[in-house]
Amino acid sequence: MTTFGDRVVSAVKKKGNPCVVGLDFHDRLIPAFVSKALQQCKARDEFRRIVSELFCRIIEAVSPLVPAIKPQYSLLESYGAAGVEILEDIIRVAHNEDLLVIADAKRGDIASSAKGYADAFLSARSTELFPHGYDADALTVNAFLGRDTLDPYIDICKQSTKGIFVLVKTSNSGSAETQDARLESGKSIAELYAEIVDQVGHKCIGDSGYSGVGAVVGATFPLEASKLRKLMPHAIVLVPGYGTQGASAKDVVVNFNDDGLGALVNSSRSITYAYGSTDVSEKNYYLSVVENTNRMIDDIVHALKTVSG
Amino acid sequence: MTTFGDRVVSAVKKKGNPCVVGLDFHDRLIPAFVSKALQQCKARDEFRRIVSELFCRIIEAVSPLVPAIKPQYSLLESYGAAGVEILEDIIRVAHNEDLLVIADAKRGDIASSAKGYADAFLSARSTELFPHGYDADALTVNAFLGRDTLDPYIDICKQSTKGIFVLVKTSNSGSAETQDARLESGKSIAELYAEIVDQVGHKCIGDSGYSGVGAVVGATFPLEASKLRKLMPHAIVLVPGYGTQGASAKDVVVNFNDDGLGALVNSSRSITYAYGSTDVSEKNYYLSVVENTNRMIDDIVHALKTVSG
Repeated sequence: MTTFGDRVVSAVKKKGNPCVVGLDFHDRLIPAFVSKALQQCKARDEFRRIVSELFCRIIEAVSPLVPAIKPQYSLLESYGAAGVEILEDIIRVAHNEDLLVIADAKRGDIASSAKGYADAFLSARSTELFPHGYDADALTVNAFLGRDTLDPYIDICKQSTKGIFVLVKTSNSGSAETQDARLESGKSIAELYAEIVDQVGHKCIGDSGYSGVGAVVGATFPLEASKLRKLMPHAIVLVPGYGTQGASAKDVVVNFNDDGLGALVNSSRSITYAYGSTDVSEKNYYLSVVENTNRMIDDIVHALKTVSG
Repeated sequence: MTTFGDRVVSAVKKKGNPCVVGLDFHDRLIPAFVSKALQQCKARDEFRRIVSELFCRIIEAVSPLVPAIKPQYSLLESYGAAGVEILEDIIRVAHNEDLLVIADAKRGDIASSAKGYADAFLSARSTELFPHGYDADALTVNAFLGRDTLDPYIDICKQSTKGIFVLVKTSNSGSAETQDARLESGKSIAELYAEIVDQVGHKCIGDSGYSGVGAVVGATFPLEASKLRKLMPHAIVLVPGYGTQGASAKDVVVNFNDDGLGALVNSSRSITYAYGSTDVSEKNYYLSVVENTNRMIDDIVHALKTVSG
């Protein structure tokens, strides 16, 4: 059985690192050559073309280097139908470049509405009405509504090589109140979710030993992360919080298993928005994206080697 | 100060009932006159026109009767840009009909991504690039990521008459594990969220005594609902689970305050998909929507009167 976990392991081995480039559309952080084009743009199609070109060129720049990208949905949903089309463009180009796509949309609902999200993000469609579908490889999922709400995603993970990342411990400071609080049983709320991830993920473990059901565990709380890692040995852990959010390469090491696998480390702004001067040239902007990606890869790979000796 | 809570109270008093019509797009439940048109439809714009017409005629049929509608996002997200445009159409027509719109998208993310969702759903925009924006009156929000992730929505609730409904206790059976579990402090997880709703909502209490920050509490667990009601006296409680999901009018009464206000009761399928024979005529279909809505209103209003004596 091949699962999304197997595909992650294979892509990480091929690229030699577990780094993910996050694609966030911050209209105040984009370089001047893009913001100037947007200011002059008059129609929705033109807006889509300009923003899609930015992201697609980033994708082409990083595709030889990393196994996966993670587009953030919220910032593009502000742009309605154009935002949806840009997300479709991103996923199509990433797949052409043989990258895994993790749709960071943090969806969560019950029953038929949960199935609606599972279908929208993970099903492969190709009709006149919905030409690309999202057809992402994996989706971030919020399981606050209960483990039964994961069923439609699990069905897809079992029947295909698609995956999900269930939010277990997020990288923001406010997560303490809703995720670190202890239950009467003695375990934390995050540990409850880790157990759910482990249990539902057992149905989707592939040949590599990794499941299609993964978890999100922020890099900003390494002590908690270390415990959570042990509770879900078969899960791929998606780790946000490295870079701009403050976590170091050393902090993320605890999210890996002893085999050196089992985690993907994301960085968004410190790759795409750390380009120096706002009026950077187009050429130098994409060079900065490559440099920042290589710097992150070196940093993470070095930290992993140091630990494994 | 006028808040979203005030607008709900005013709309409920004007229509004489607290009922909300939920708009879910289930392609297997729609009447034959719509599904036949969809089968013959060749282009995205035609798909949008047919589905928008269905929902817009439902809205026109129920607008004299109820204070609000609740479009469900997941089932339309499967249709990409066309789905977004249909949701824009629904909201525009509902506002023309003077109905409140609760966008049921259950969003939740941190920092700038949370702000992205707040802007996408609640900000009023009118640009060439995003002609309508969603501009909903309220959004359902998942606060699992922490109370700090509510900040961007609270800012909007304070500065405008928009609102949110934070998920506290959902109507599915699986919610027991993740929402009823007891913390060391003795309170349940749902009670922790109810306290968060009460505390952050204090900044947005309007002249009516009701806040722009509301809560979602399912009708299927009246014992829990009764406790949660007392923990957040200023919140408007949005109550799913009545009708097809199994809760009765008697079950929802505990979600109201002693003033007979403070809750909105939603029904989706038992209004829009309880039309008898699949080959119902167009005329009879919209008549069934009106009849089902009136039946729900009578049922709820009667139950509320019986309790208040």
